[in-house]
Amino acid sequence: MQTRESVLRVREYFIELQTTICNALAEADGTATFSLKPIQTPNGGLAQPRVLAGGQHIEKAAVQFTHSVGDALPAAATERNPHLAGAPFQATAISMIVHPTNPMVPTTHMNLRFFIVDVDEPVWYFGGGYDLTPYYGNQQDCVHWHETASMATGDHYPKLKAQCDEYFYLGHRQECRGIGGIFFDDWTDGGFEASLKFVQQVGNSLLPAYLPIFEARKLEPFTEQEKDFQLYRRGRYAEFNLAIDRGTKYGLQSGRRIESVLASLPPVVKWVYDYQAPPGSKEAQLTDYYLKPKDWLAPNLAP
Amino acid sequence: MQTRESVLRVREYFIELQTTICNALAEADGTATFSLKPIQTPNGGLAQPRVLAGGQHIEKAAVQFTHSVGDALPAAATERNPHLAGAPFQATAISMIVHPTNPMVPTTHMNLRFFIVDVDEPVWYFGGGYDLTPYYGNQQDCVHWHETASMATGDHYPKLKAQCDEYFYLGHRQECRGIGGIFFDDWTDGGFEASLKFVQQVGNSLLPAYLPIFEARKLEPFTEQEKDFQLYRRGRYAEFNLAIDRGTKYGLQSGRRIESVLASLPPVVKWVYDYQAPPGSKEAQLTDYYLKPKDWLAPNLAP
Repeated sequence: MQTRESVLRVREYFIELQTTICNALAEADGTATFSLKPIQTPNGGLAQPRVLAGGQHIEKAAVQFTHSVGDALPAAATERNPHLAGAPFQATAISMIVHPTNPMVPTTHMNLRFFIVDVDEPVWYFGGGYDLTPYYGNQQDCVHWHETASMATGDHYPKLKAQCDEYFYLGHRQECRGIGGIFFDDWTDGGFEASLKFVQQVGNSLLPAYLPIFEARKLEPFTEQEKDFQLYRRGRYAEFNLAIDRGTKYGLQSGRRIESVLASLPPVVKWVYDYQAPPGSKEAQLTDYYLKPKDWLAPNLAP
Repeated sequence: MQTRESVLRVREYFIELQTTICNALAEADGTATFSLKPIQTPNGGLAQPRVLAGGQHIEKAAVQFTHSVGDALPAAATERNPHLAGAPFQATAISMIVHPTNPMVPTTHMNLRFFIVDVDEPVWYFGGGYDLTPYYGNQQDCVHWHETASMATGDHYPKLKAQCDEYFYLGHRQECRGIGGIFFDDWTDGGFEASLKFVQQVGNSLLPAYLPIFEARKLEPFTEQEKDFQLYRRGRYAEFNLAIDRGTKYGLQSGRRIESVLASLPPVVKWVYDYQAPPGSKEAQLTDYYLKPKDWLAPNLAP
């Protein structure tokens, strides 16, 4: 396996996926478009952050591609492989987040990444996944989301779903970030070709998983109070990204362009001291029902 | 030195200071008051979070007292004394943050704390300080702030000022959080009596340092654009507290009441992708001039 060639193949797919996602999201929004400003980095690296802000239905979306060529792998990137810290590496990744305007539309996040470390026998792995964070829960949406994830990942789904629930957890709130999805790391299953194909299946399933939900909810009416609840819940997102997320830690440590690292942060956030949702309200149902890990593929789940 | 007696004396001062500060801030606001809901904790501890929200001039302020009695000191609290991790301890602290409505009024933060660890020879220390975070810089305010801090801390001021600049720094932004103030940790200077007196001088100087600035600026006119800039800059505050601050890390690890730990977060925050202040604007002056560490006591500084 040649390092250069495998990185280029992953890179090509990620760039293509970035274009596809940006075009689809811009079309779903209907008014705004994504910025495009490629930034060449030393040693053949490339950063291509694309951001859409102030759209009709999308308040902010960031879809970012990066390919970095580095001399020494930072510790945060190698928590599971500490012996690789300090070795030359290449990393390429696509990450996406959508913060919709309408609180009835869930936020979604996807990340796919490939690391290859230039030691005697190159060590490489893929990682990634996607997850959904509703503000107002909708059972049908959750089932569709997980069914699509399950179709894309087949037999791996139960494990990847459990890993997602585990990773996107705010210990200090004792709350899941959302209703989950799939999450994988250190992925080498079946070798490079099979792994790349698997990652492509995941990447290609993001739009079929998310767009139908987005389209079904983007025109639903909502009150100012419901918008406020969305802004309040976005605080959890900021807490997770800044205080917990490994990707953000890696970004902050590695000296990557900070506006790209933090482009995932919500456009507007409210922190309300000691907010308590009225018992039985839709707001209470979010944490009492939707944010509890459950088998979304099993029938007859009634909120 | 008896552990119980020394903790109680510090506790008494912190509770008194909390009352003084809350009364003064409520009066300065003119319409809103602080919540008061003491929470007794096991083993004789006490948490007394006090929050004012939605005032006329204060959008949110949190003044919190805590006294905790613990079986095992968490690692984050003992970074400088790792051999104490796991020992029984008592900790008492007051922390304060003010997020004003008017962007011409700076945000301020104060923290005073006392730790005592029950090992054979009790190990104790004070820590704390205060700092100022303007959105629109004002040279006169900065000089007044630092002059008051200097009077309260005397010969210690230069060292404590430098430590404050060092601590309240966002490495990922290469920016200071504000225009500084004073910061100290592991403070045992001159023994317990002298240290307590020193901490009282610091605590008692907070209102004389902050209120004149608050009063001078709270009625200044401001535009919607200037308010937006304040919300944008508050993002830095959230980034610091969630991703960097040692106090928050300790709070998240120690399982303290999360609404108290995160009460310092701003009420409303905006993250704007890749914002660039127009060169020469007041907004650019903030980062180009005010947020660069400097000797605020030296005369003839012209922005």
